[in-house]
Amino acid sequence: MKVQPRTLSGFMELLPREQLVMERIMQTLRETYGSYGFTPLDTPIIEASEVLLAKGGGETEKQIYRFTKGDSDLSLRFDLTVPLAKYVALHCNELAFPFRRYQIGKVYRGERAQRGRFREFYQADIDIIGDGKLDVANEAEIPAIIYQTFSRLGLKRFQICVNNRKILNGFYSILNLTEQAGDIMRTVDKLDKIGAEKVAELLRAELGLSPSNVEEIMNFISINGTNAEVLAALDRYAGQNELFDAGRAELETVIKYLSAFGVPEDHFAVDLTIARGLDYYTGTVYETAMLDHPEIGSICSGGRYDNLAGYYTNKVLPGVGISIGLTRLFYVLNEQHMLDTASAPADVLILPMTPDLTHAISVASRLRELGVRVQLYTEKKKFNAKMNYADRQGIPYVIFLGEDEIAAQLISCKDMATGEQTKLDFDQTYTRIIQGLGQRQSAAIIKESTQKGTEQS
Amino acid sequence: MKVQPRTLSGFMELLPREQLVMERIMQTLRETYGSYGFTPLDTPIIEASEVLLAKGGGETEKQIYRFTKGDSDLSLRFDLTVPLAKYVALHCNELAFPFRRYQIGKVYRGERAQRGRFREFYQADIDIIGDGKLDVANEAEIPAIIYQTFSRLGLKRFQICVNNRKILNGFYSILNLTEQAGDIMRTVDKLDKIGAEKVAELLRAELGLSPSNVEEIMNFISINGTNAEVLAALDRYAGQNELFDAGRAELETVIKYLSAFGVPEDHFAVDLTIARGLDYYTGTVYETAMLDHPEIGSICSGGRYDNLAGYYTNKVLPGVGISIGLTRLFYVLNEQHMLDTASAPADVLILPMTPDLTHAISVASRLRELGVRVQLYTEKKKFNAKMNYADRQGIPYVIFLGEDEIAAQLISCKDMATGEQTKLDFDQTYTRIIQGLGQRQSAAIIKESTQKGTEQS
Repeated sequence: MKVQPRTLSGFMELLPREQLVMERIMQTLRETYGSYGFTPLDTPIIEASEVLLAKGGGETEKQIYRFTKGDSDLSLRFDLTVPLAKYVALHCNELAFPFRRYQIGKVYRGERAQRGRFREFYQADIDIIGDGKLDVANEAEIPAIIYQTFSRLGLKRFQICVNNRKILNGFYSILNLTEQAGDIMRTVDKLDKIGAEKVAELLRAELGLSPSNVEEIMNFISINGTNAEVLAALDRYAGQNELFDAGRAELETVIKYLSAFGVPEDHFAVDLTIARGLDYYTGTVYETAMLDHPEIGSICSGGRYDNLAGYYTNKVLPGVGISIGLTRLFYVLNEQHMLDTASAPADVLILPMTPDLTHAISVASRLRELGVRVQLYTEKKKFNAKMNYADRQGIPYVIFLGEDEIAAQLISCKDMATGEQTKLDFDQTYTRIIQGLGQRQSAAIIKESTQKGTEQS
Repeated sequence: MKVQPRTLSGFMELLPREQLVMERIMQTLRETYGSYGFTPLDTPIIEASEVLLAKGGGETEKQIYRFTKGDSDLSLRFDLTVPLAKYVALHCNELAFPFRRYQIGKVYRGERAQRGRFREFYQADIDIIGDGKLDVANEAEIPAIIYQTFSRLGLKRFQICVNNRKILNGFYSILNLTEQAGDIMRTVDKLDKIGAEKVAELLRAELGLSPSNVEEIMNFISINGTNAEVLAALDRYAGQNELFDAGRAELETVIKYLSAFGVPEDHFAVDLTIARGLDYYTGTVYETAMLDHPEIGSICSGGRYDNLAGYYTNKVLPGVGISIGLTRLFYVLNEQHMLDTASAPADVLILPMTPDLTHAISVASRLRELGVRVQLYTEKKKFNAKMNYADRQGIPYVIFLGEDEIAAQLISCKDMATGEQTKLDFDQTYTRIIQGLGQRQSAAIIKESTQKGTEQS
């Protein structure tokens, strides 16, 4: 009696071609984050429930995978922020601050199963945590990291959108609307979906704002243009509220350092409608939009917060961080056929054509020493089956080694893309392969349809 | 009221210095496995219990993290082999065979908490799965992969020990001891711990073997010497049992290709006492010993099996695989101070000495473009605190940029190890840093005390 093999719904399990792309993405993230001095962190997937749920948890709490083992009440982590808070609170005497860490790990939420919704998914987070204080220069660096990350992945048509919570809170304070600020921001957040008129109507009808306040708000959130134009427009509100002025100064700092950080101005925009989580963020907030795919939503978000771990420690730990919902991003890019699935598990497949494999093994070993990924195919199959194997896996070069080649100290090598076959010595074969691979490896992981890009730019 | 932050016992959580070493180890494994054409695999940590426990499971079953969520009976994976079996059975029509995959992932076993025992730990597995058949050449390749893996990690004094289950089963069949073979192998397995005399005594007293059979067994398991000597000694038993002869031929093949695969003979030994799991393995079996640390036990083990996924599918899927218990290996190496913890999260720390950060940011961006990992330190602290920060993190170079340096287009750069400070232009500074980093990066991840090596070699 066989058990039917299956994978749980809401759990992503990729085939090799796709998994290779995911690996390339993760490696790109590790390298990019590493280049800014972030250190890798790995925390347990299981934590004590009372630790993981210390913050208390509304909607998230219902989705948590929670269970007992022996006497222990355990939960699977549902994000990487709470484990970071625990880690920093627990080890704060052993860490050097500012503590910069990246973490790419699986988190768990028992959401209703739904296409494109995952119960197990990767988040890729970076955070910079200060000990009591954290300079605004760190907030200015984040757009650079976002820009580098997506550029290295091959994405071109994206924009990093930035706002500052102090500007928002200050603005609503100027209007004497501090108490209603949360409701207003939630309404303004719907702007993309329902449009300006409908937002204005809701502000009037549902929140009971006066016509003049509604007008002020609509004017404010429609501020746009170049960075310089936005800063100039914000000047209109200056000098009325300290918090507003502080936020505007921070925004000016973030903008000021953009070009030194290598972020082109067309990849950056101030967007005064962005608020992000209402309680958590206190300064600069970030979202990242794919210009040709607004339906995907923000692919990298985050912001500045004043206290990471208040529920664990009296130590004040301000920070700034961003997160990529990697599994969902992978899923939507794959759906849109925007991933380069030309990756293969090996660069070269060697087919020995003689019973004695010694020569073939030696050639494989020499190529590996030179950094080429080589698979030796030793199964007794028909020639077509062997070629089909290389083809199915997308392996770009196949090497044949028969009696003739061995006697002549030559290597027959077929380029599977062009069909071109050469019979050269080892060094020449190696050179040919390396040149071909160089072209392949420079291919972008995320591909954009240039046509679409042209249409909209 | 604060919640006390804590990490569950039996769950490894590393500080940044150690985590950086773990990252380097994992990256080395990914690259090494990749160089042999293994494709990465990532399966869910949660599976349906009836799928994960399809094989049924004795001791392991008690340790499993099993719970319900809604209507679902779920379990956390306890190894990477069952998920592989599920994956191959489920996707066999979409995979190209032989299917070569590596997987580095966390597995869960609720063992009694004990020093050096982990409930969440990484396994790093490779397997080659055939569709109906799998050539013995794959078994010959495994020692090469083990050798490359540990050599690239910096280990020198280790030995790959190989046996063949067909030789063992054939031998016991020759002695008419097939029924007792399992008990005998379990007893022989204790050789290292209790010595030959005690093993002989147990074979006689507990298993009731005749003196002549005990003598035969003791003679057999004491066969050693060079590979050629071992093969010659095995010839004594040839021609009496087909299985034995097949096993001897396979062993000869494995040995024959060793040097073409680049495995030095002193890193390889036939050890006729190795059996590994009694029901699962059917051909070549592998263990890997650290010569100066026999107490650590095998650091990489595995073997050939005839059927990966019999409980899921009628398809016959023979394979060969090895596994590294990565978390435990890391733990023991760390305890022995054998890990190179000189890794730092950044190569260079830049300390801007002017209020305007533009120049410092530009220098950071240029260095990053050239592949240097740069952290910009922008907190307002005393100079000593800043230097202490670099020191604590082991960052090898610190760059100072004051008004003088900016005006003269020079960079002050201090080598934190030697204390040497230079004031050079950008290109010269970059060259100096790159040269220094090159020396550091070639450092082995696993360090052996050469003294001990000399003592014993």
